[in-house]
Amino acid sequence: MLRVPSHGECEILRAQDIVVADGVIEEVRPTGTLGATGTPGPLGASGPLDVSGPTGPSGAGHAVDVIDGRGLLAVPGLVNAHTHSPMVLMRGAAEDVTVEGWFNDRVWPMESNLTPADVRIGARLACAEMIRSGVTTFADHYFFPEQIAEAVAETGLRADIAPTYFSSRGEEALADTVKFAEAWHGRADGRVTVSLGPHAPYTVDDGDLRTLAGHARRLGLRMHIHAAEHLEQTQSSLERRGVTPIRVLHETGVLDAGALIAHGCGIVEQDLPLLAEYAGTTAVACCPKVYLKHALSPLTPVRDLLATGVTVAVGTDGAAGHNTLDVWEALRLVALTQKQAVRDATWMTVSDTLRLAMRGGARALGLQREIGALEPGMRADIVLTDLSGLHCRPLHDPRAALVYSARASDVRTVVVDGRVLMRDGRLLTVDEPALLAEADTRVARILDTSHGGAVQHYDP
Amino acid sequence: MLRVPSHGECEILRAQDIVVADGVIEEVRPTGTLGATGTPGPLGASGPLDVSGPTGPSGAGHAVDVIDGRGLLAVPGLVNAHTHSPMVLMRGAAEDVTVEGWFNDRVWPMESNLTPADVRIGARLACAEMIRSGVTTFADHYFFPEQIAEAVAETGLRADIAPTYFSSRGEEALADTVKFAEAWHGRADGRVTVSLGPHAPYTVDDGDLRTLAGHARRLGLRMHIHAAEHLEQTQSSLERRGVTPIRVLHETGVLDAGALIAHGCGIVEQDLPLLAEYAGTTAVACCPKVYLKHALSPLTPVRDLLATGVTVAVGTDGAAGHNTLDVWEALRLVALTQKQAVRDATWMTVSDTLRLAMRGGARALGLQREIGALEPGMRADIVLTDLSGLHCRPLHDPRAALVYSARASDVRTVVVDGRVLMRDGRLLTVDEPALLAEADTRVARILDTSHGGAVQHYDP
Repeated sequence: MLRVPSHGECEILRAQDIVVADGVIEEVRPTGTLGATGTPGPLGASGPLDVSGPTGPSGAGHAVDVIDGRGLLAVPGLVNAHTHSPMVLMRGAAEDVTVEGWFNDRVWPMESNLTPADVRIGARLACAEMIRSGVTTFADHYFFPEQIAEAVAETGLRADIAPTYFSSRGEEALADTVKFAEAWHGRADGRVTVSLGPHAPYTVDDGDLRTLAGHARRLGLRMHIHAAEHLEQTQSSLERRGVTPIRVLHETGVLDAGALIAHGCGIVEQDLPLLAEYAGTTAVACCPKVYLKHALSPLTPVRDLLATGVTVAVGTDGAAGHNTLDVWEALRLVALTQKQAVRDATWMTVSDTLRLAMRGGARALGLQREIGALEPGMRADIVLTDLSGLHCRPLHDPRAALVYSARASDVRTVVVDGRVLMRDGRLLTVDEPALLAEADTRVARILDTSHGGAVQHYDP
Repeated sequence: MLRVPSHGECEILRAQDIVVADGVIEEVRPTGTLGATGTPGPLGASGPLDVSGPTGPSGAGHAVDVIDGRGLLAVPGLVNAHTHSPMVLMRGAAEDVTVEGWFNDRVWPMESNLTPADVRIGARLACAEMIRSGVTTFADHYFFPEQIAEAVAETGLRADIAPTYFSSRGEEALADTVKFAEAWHGRADGRVTVSLGPHAPYTVDDGDLRTLAGHARRLGLRMHIHAAEHLEQTQSSLERRGVTPIRVLHETGVLDAGALIAHGCGIVEQDLPLLAEYAGTTAVACCPKVYLKHALSPLTPVRDLLATGVTVAVGTDGAAGHNTLDVWEALRLVALTQKQAVRDATWMTVSDTLRLAMRGGARALGLQREIGALEPGMRADIVLTDLSGLHCRPLHDPRAALVYSARASDVRTVVVDGRVLMRDGRLLTVDEPALLAEADTRVARILDTSHGGAVQHYDP
C-alpha cells in the first residue's frame, strides 16, 4: 500500500489489508490478521510489491467482497483537479494551433454545437476513461452540469462540478447555476459536490463575480475559476484595468469564498501576498501538458505557491487540449516541468509529486478530510495498480515507478466510496461499446464549425 | 496505414494490405486486391481506423502468414535513436538528484558492478520492453556490446550498437571496440550494425577521437557520441580549451565520419555553420524526458538543427534516467517541449513529430533506405496499434492520437524484418518471466555502491 503522509516521504507498506465498511476505510492492518468477515490469504513474501487483501464492505449483515490484491499496489485514487469532462468529444480536433486559434477557430465554435444529450454522452465517456486510469475524483467545469452530475451519479465516481458561466449569458444563466448548486450539492450519497464556476475574470464581469461569490458564501460552496492562465493575460489585465486577475478575485470576494484556480501560469510576484491571505482555502490546479502544447512560458509557479501555503493540485484540463484525462501523465509532467522551471532536479520529488496528485487534489476540492490517503476514516477510494510490467521492472522503488514508469493501463481495479467500479480491467458501471457507438454518431455535427457561431470570443 | 512522407502531412490510408516477402515490403495495396498467395478478408468500412491485411512472407514455396489487422493502424516501427539498453537494471534507482549526483553518486558507481551476464539480462529485458512498445530499432551505446548484439540477434530486433569507450580504459579497450565492430557489423541478417562509441569529448581525448574516427572511415561506420549534452558543458569546454564540443568533433574528424550526437542541448549558434557542413551525415538524438528530469534548459535546438539540414531523431536515453524505453512517451515530449521552447504552438506538428521518430530515426542510424516508412522496398518493420481505447476516442485524427493520446500498451503486434516478434500482445522471442526472475536475483548487487568505485568521474 502507498502511504501518503501530509509531509515527508511516501512509504510502501507491504502486505496490508484494507478493511472497508459503508464506503469508509475502517482499518488498515497487516495481511492475515483479518477476523471472521474476511479470508486471510497466504500473502507472504511477494517481493517489493504491496499486497492489498480484502477491500469492500464488511461487517455483520453484509456480504463480504474480498478483492485479492496480491501482487498489486493499492494507492489513493487520483484526483483530477481541473477538467471539462465532456470535451472528450473534441479530443484531437484542435491540434497545432495558437491559444487564440484554439478558442476562437476550434473549441468555442464546436462548443456552440453541443446539446445536453451530447454532454450526457461526453461526460459518461470521460467518467469511463477516468475510472480506467485510476482517477476517482474530478473537478469539472462545464455547460449542462446536470448531465455531468447524472453521469457521476450513475458511474459511481466522485466529482465537484462547477457550471460554467459567462456574463454574456445573462442573469437567467447565473440564476441557473445557483439553482444547480442548490439541487445537486451533496447528492449521490455525497459523491457530487458543486462549486460555482464563473469562467474567468476576462469573461465574467466584476459584478457577476461578486454576486456568485456571495452565493458561494451563503451556500457554503467553493468557487472554481480560470484565472491568470498565462502571463499575457496578466499583462493584458494590468494594461486594461491596472490590476492582476488574482487581485480581481480578491476584490470581488472570490478568494474569500474559497477558490480553485485553474492554471495560474500568470500568477506574478505581487499576487503572492494576496494569495497568502487566503492560503488555507485557495488551490491552484496545474495542467502542464496543455501549457506546453500551447507553447506557454512561464508555467504555474508551483514552488512559490507552495511556499505561501496555497494548495497545488494536478489536472488534465479538457481533452480537446490534453487529449487524455490521464492524471498519471499529468503528474509526471508536473514533476518534469517543475524541476526544469526552477532549474533544480532535486525538488518536486517523487513523494511530493504523488502528494500533489492525491492529498493536493483532495484539498483543492475541499475534501481533505474525506479523500487523498488510505487511512481509517477516509472514504474508500482505492486504486489497485499492477507494477509488474516490463516498463516498471526491476521494481527498485514503486514510488518512482508510479511517477515515472507507470501507465494508466497499469490500473487494474478501482473502488470509489467502497463500490467497485472496475475489477481487473472490467468496467462495471459503464456500457463502453454502447457509449462509443453513440458518440460516433454525434461527432460530425459537433465538429462542424461552418455556422460561424461560438459560445464566446477570446480576447482576454 | 500511416503514410509518413519525407515532407508534408502524414496521411492515414484506409484498408490497405501490406505484402511482405523475404523481410521486405513488396507491395502496399488496397485490401481485397491480393492475389492467390493471400486471403483477402471482408475488410470493408471500418470507420476511421486503418485496416492492414496480410503481413508476413508470401510467394510460392513459402507458407503464408496472414495477420488480420482489421481495426488496427499499421505504422512504421519506432526508432529509439539513443539509449543504453542494459540500464533498465537501474530503472528508478537514481531519482531526484542533480546531473553530477546522478553520474558520480549513483549511475557510474552502479555501472562498475555490471558483469557481462548482467548486461546480457539487461539487454534482453530492454529488447522485450521495446518490442512491447513498438520500437523496432534502437541505437545503443554501452559496455559489453557483444552481449547486446546477441540479445538483438536472439530477440529479432534491429539495432545499431556502439561500444562505449572512455580514454581512461586505455588502448586495449579501444582496440576491442574496433574488433567488436569488425565482428558484428552487418550480422544477424543485417539487423545488427555497429557504430564507434567514444563516450563524449569530456571523457575521450582528442587523440582517441581521431583514432576512432579514422577507424570509422576505414570501416564505413558511423560514430555515436554524447556531445554538448547541456549548455554548461559547452561553457566548460569553452573555458577549459576555447572550443565548443561540436568543434572538437569537427577537429577530430568525428563529424567527417558521420555522427549521431546524443542530446546536443548545448549546441550553440557558432556550432550551426559547422554542423551544416556535415548536415547530410549528422544527426542529433533528442531525449527530452531526461532533460526535464535533470532540470536542464535550454533543450536540444531542434528548430535550428532542422534549418541547417541536420537530422533530428527521438531517443529515450537509458532507463536509469528516462525510466522507460517508451518512444511514444519520448516523441510526445519532443512535440510538447519543442513547442514551448520556441514559443510557437503551431510548429512541431503532429506530422513532423511522427516523421522525426520514424524517418528521422532511420536517418540518424544511416538506415533511411531500409526503414522509417511503410513503402515497397523497405524492410518490413511494422507495428500494429490499437486506437480503439477510450483514451483515443472519438478518433477524429489518428495521427493526433498517436502523438498525444496513445500509449505503448496500445501496441498489439510487432513485425521486424518480416518476422513477427509480438502477436496480439504476446511476445514470441522472449521468455519474459524467466528473464524477470533472473534480473531480480541480480539487482541488490548491482545497486550496491558501498565499494566507492565508479566507471568514471563526471567533471566535464
